[in-house]
Parts: sequence; structure tokens; C-alpha cells
Amino acid sequence: MSPMVIAVDAMGGDNGPSVIVGGAAIARERFPQVRFVFFGDEAVVAPLVKGQPLLADCSDIIHTATAISSDEKPSVAMRRGKGTSMWMACEAVRDGKAQAAVSAGNTGALMAIAMLLLRKAPAISRPAIASFVPTIRGESIMLDLGANVGCDERNLVEFAFMGAAFARASLGLPRPKVGLLNIGTEDLKGNEAVRGAAQVLRDATDLPFEFCGFVEGNGIAQGTADVIVADGFAGNIALKTQEGTARLISAYLAATFRRSIWSKIGYLLARPALQALRERLDPNRYNGGALLGLNGLVVKSHGGTNAVGFAAAIGIAADLAIGGFVDRVLDDLKRIGPAPAGAEETTEEQAAVQS
Amino acid sequence: MSPMVIAVDAMGGDNGPSVIVGGAAIARERFPQVRFVFFGDEAVVAPLVKGQPLLADCSDIIHTATAISSDEKPSVAMRRGKGTSMWMACEAVRDGKAQAAVSAGNTGALMAIAMLLLRKAPAISRPAIASFVPTIRGESIMLDLGANVGCDERNLVEFAFMGAAFARASLGLPRPKVGLLNIGTEDLKGNEAVRGAAQVLRDATDLPFEFCGFVEGNGIAQGTADVIVADGFAGNIALKTQEGTARLISAYLAATFRRSIWSKIGYLLARPALQALRERLDPNRYNGGALLGLNGLVVKSHGGTNAVGFAAAIGIAADLAIGGFVDRVLDDLKRIGPAPAGAEETTEEQAAVQS
Repeated sequence: MSPMVIAVDAMGGDNGPSVIVGGAAIARERFPQVRFVFFGDEAVVAPLVKGQPLLADCSDIIHTATAISSDEKPSVAMRRGKGTSMWMACEAVRDGKAQAAVSAGNTGALMAIAMLLLRKAPAISRPAIASFVPTIRGESIMLDLGANVGCDERNLVEFAFMGAAFARASLGLPRPKVGLLNIGTEDLKGNEAVRGAAQVLRDATDLPFEFCGFVEGNGIAQGTADVIVADGFAGNIALKTQEGTARLISAYLAATFRRSIWSKIGYLLARPALQALRERLDPNRYNGGALLGLNGLVVKSHGGTNAVGFAAAIGIAADLAIGGFVDRVLDDLKRIGPAPAGAEETTEEQAAVQS
Repeated sequence: MSPMVIAVDAMGGDNGPSVIVGGAAIARERFPQVRFVFFGDEAVVAPLVKGQPLLADCSDIIHTATAISSDEKPSVAMRRGKGTSMWMACEAVRDGKAQAAVSAGNTGALMAIAMLLLRKAPAISRPAIASFVPTIRGESIMLDLGANVGCDERNLVEFAFMGAAFARASLGLPRPKVGLLNIGTEDLKGNEAVRGAAQVLRDATDLPFEFCGFVEGNGIAQGTADVIVADGFAGNIALKTQEGTARLISAYLAATFRRSIWSKIGYLLARPALQALRERLDPNRYNGGALLGLNGLVVKSHGGTNAVGFAAAIGIAADLAIGGFVDRVLDDLKRIGPAPAGAEETTEEQAAVQS
């Protein structure tokens, strides 16, 4: 068996290549079987790799002097991105030289380039972005987080299959519980797409997951389902509302402990426990959005992440690659037949504009 | 000037009339100019009202033995709800005997009955549900929270006007900042409806509010806008995700303080401050969804609320009634002209099924 190779865009992100390389070193501890190919400015990247003993015998560097800037328009990135570190990382996946690509660069550009180079997988009408979200039971997976603003029932059904395969690979759940995000739990609630998708999933007899019906916004953090399926508009709103609320409460909490001398002393005594809480809510822990539904794996890291966060994004790529995600989803989807021939298609250009 | 009268459905909600009457007594402290008409079983309600000195000289009771049950279907409630406490409260508003109605009963039934009796206001194509949400700066208003699953650009523009009028009346802001909930802040982001609404609001020269563009999910708690406008699907998901996340972090926090003897002592010292935090995040504080866009005011309280929460719902009704909300919105909306004749209409029956 050939080793698992992950292609890393060493030039993407707001904090420079040192965070990227540092993240790879952290990820390597968890995945000793993984090798890395870093795409970027060799003069900068090589000394960083050399500085990480864990990366010494498992890393290659492929030089490129150009990178996609953080404000580049996706349509421009698609036309002029060839040869950039991001493009080359995706190209490595397309050419079978790597099993997954990870980038902390410009989201819209990455989606556009990934779709252009890797193309949609057969049986998938729309790719989706999936990520972990914190719940009272641990972690769930939510998708789509913004690749598609509007979805029909077929799109949502595909997301359910892709999310379930993600949960099997990354959470080790043999038969994950999959729910559809909706504004109520009764059958009649919601728009046509969610009601239709629920009908398809309820009627299916041979699902590789357990369909648990509709999940409301408050059910996400409750851990009602292992996989939350939504269109990209609702999913993105839910994800970012969760982030914003966590930040709000952290701010409230900080103010709370400043209220009196007693609360300040209380804070000092509870400090190690509160530090653990802070780590639990640290967005870096949940960093990494997997672009699913292509002929190859691409994971987007948050641009402002730190090395721990970038390692989390690599972890998603490694879990999915080791779990044989791409083939597994296609296999699973045979149970519901091919994407309808007339299915609404998103061209790469449209996706780029939307993103 | 005739006194301000609020019609109260004394039989709605999970916790019985004592919570309703208790809530009215709390609200009366803040609004000494308000009178109440309670609709419900006189044998139960009269002793409760008599037990509240603050309500003695400002309350009427109108007896009815029937009430809408919590699991009644909206369509059935519409056909057979006549004479119930909820129906009669809405009827009092229609007949000019009260300026607003408040109920903690079945949401779908209340929406259906309110729409049937009060009808949509002229210039409004779709009513919406609006509520307060907590932010780092205090409170903002969000709408729609579930009355409409899909919205077009005109609907969203109307919501902006209604939300702004709500903010003026209840938050005392002369020129509130209004934002559209979206999955990004750039002009090209989002679906057709939000992009179209943004265009209309950007082009308008004489708005009675400040349009501040798109707000992302994390901007809600940030207080980026005083009014967040969304379709009922996204708004409902955002509201409930915020609730769920707050509950998740409270649970994490409780576990945090149980970690060690030091954190337990720390908890005891910080207890009064933490109690204040708990009150700040108490969902009862934000209780009350105003049904806007009808020829009259109706406010829905959460069914499981306590007296403080029911008082908050009455407070919304009183603020909107005192601020002359209904007339004010119609006046404001003249600036953008009447609802298009061909505008998609939601019949009461459809609304009832959706709700």
C-alpha cells in the first residue's frame, strides 16, 4: 500500500507558512502514516520544515513563487491561478499524487479551483462544505455551510449521504444519526426541499445511516443528530450564529468575574477549570471545512487559524482519506440511484460568484 | 384619550392562568396607564386577579369556558375556535376594544386566528414574527422568526420597515440600524431575495432607518444591527441556534465549576455575579414574539414561560401599542409604495399549515 500523502498549500492563510508547517507537525503526531507535500516558496518553507523534527523524513517541498491573495476574486483565481500554491495542491490530488489537499487560503478561490480541477463526483449534483460543530455530547457534523445558497430535495439527500460517510470516517460511528435542519419537527414544517428530502429518506429502506427526521436550531448543540443537513444558507447562518453566541457569552462571563473582589478571587480559584472550558470552546478545535462531492478531497482551514487549528483541518483530511471517503460515498449513493439528468447544475463560474 | 387596553388570553400556556395573571401584575408596574381584559374561566381567573392588588382597579374579566388546546391544528382552530379565550382576545383587538392581544397558547392557532380576524394590513404582503435577541450591546430585534418559510425581496423590505418601527417603539431608537441576515457581507453574497432587498434599501433615499447592509450569523450577537431581517426559515434557525448554544455553554460552565475543590470554592465566591449572568441569559427576559403586519397587534408568549416572561411579552405589546406601531408602519411604508398587486399571497389556510 502506497503511503497517505496530503498536499498542503503552504502560502495560504493570514498568519504565514510557519503556522501551516507547525500545524502539519502537530497533525503528524496523530497520523504517523501520513506524508506531506508542501507547495510554496522554498526559501521560506524549507527552513520551517527543517525546524520540525517530526516532518524531516516525511515531507517534500515543491517550489512555487506565486500564491492566491486573500482578496482575489474566485473567477480571476480560476483563470489566472495556475501555478499558485493553492492550484498546485489541488492539482496533486487530481493527478493522484496526493489523497487530499488542505489550504487556509481564500475560500471562494479554493472552491472554484477545486471544482475546476477535481470536478463533481458522479451521482453528486452539488458539492457541499462540511465541518464539526460542538454539542453537549461531543461533536456533530454540519453541512452545507455555504457552498449552495439554495438547494432542492435531491441536493439535501446527497448531503445526508456525504455527511453520514464523513461521520463514519471521522467520528467512527458505524451508523450515524442524520437529521434535517428545519423550523419545527412536525412533517408539515419547512420548505419544499426539506419536506421532500425527509420523504425520500423516510421511504428509503436501505440507508447506511439512521434518519432521525427534523432537527431545530436548538437541537444542533443538543447533539440530537450526529449529522445536521441544511442548505448552504441556513447551515452557514446556524454555524456563524453558534460562533457569535459563544463569543457573546464569553464576553458576558469575563464581565461577570470583574464584578466584585469576591468574583475576582473566585475566578482565580476556578482558573484552571475555566481554562479547560476556554479550550473546549476554542474555535480552532473545530477548524476545517471539508469540500465534499468532488473527485478528490479538499479541506479549507480558517484563514486566521493557529497551528493547532491547522492541524485539526489536516486531521479531517487524513480521517476522510484513510476512511476512503470518496469511493465510499459513491458506493452508498448507488442505493438511491444517479443524480437526475435534469438536475440543476451549478457551473464552476456560478459557484465562484456565489462563494 | 381612552386608556390603553391589553386583551389577555388567560387560558393559554403550559403553566396555567396563575402565571398569566402574575405576569400582568408585573407588567402593570412598568405600565401604570395600561388596563387589562382577561378572557378565560371566571371561576379560576377572578380569584387570581383579586389576589393581585396592582390589578384590582384596572382589570375586567370576560368569561369563556373554552380554550384552544396546545395540540390543536391551526386549520381546526380557525374553523372551531370561535368563543375560545384566544379567539375572543383577538376579537377584542379587531373590534377596537383593546389595542393589543397577548397569548401564551398554541402558536399556529394564534397566527391563524389573528390573521383571520385582523387581516393583513394594507401595503403588507406578508406578516412576520419579531422578537428580541441578546447582543453584546444589549438587545436587537430579529424578524421573521418562522411565519414565512420563503420570502421574496418585497417581503424582506417590508420586514425592514416593520422591524425599524418596532425598534423605535420598544428600544427608543429614533433611527435604528437595520441589516439583512446573509452568509457574507459582499454585495454578491446570498440568494436573490436578500440581494434584491439590499438593492431596494440601498437605492431608497428617504428611509426612516439606517440600512447597514448584510449581517452574518456571528453579527447578530455582536449587535452589528439594531434590527436583523431574515426570511422565516433562516430567522427561526438563527434564533433557536442562539438559544441552544447558550444552553450548551451553561451546561459546560456548570461542569467546569464541578471539576475540583478549588473551582467549587471559586463558584461559591463568584456566585452572586454568576447569578446575574444567569439572569442576563434567562430566555424569559427575551420572551414575546410580536405578530407584525396585521390590522392590530398580537403578541405570542412562549408556552412554558414564567410570570416574568409573560410580563415581558405584555411589555412588547404595550410598547408597540403606546408607540402607535400599526399606523406608524403604514405611514412609513408609503415611502416605498403599495405592495405589488401580483405579490404572492399567503392565505390564512396556508399560513396555518406552515406554522
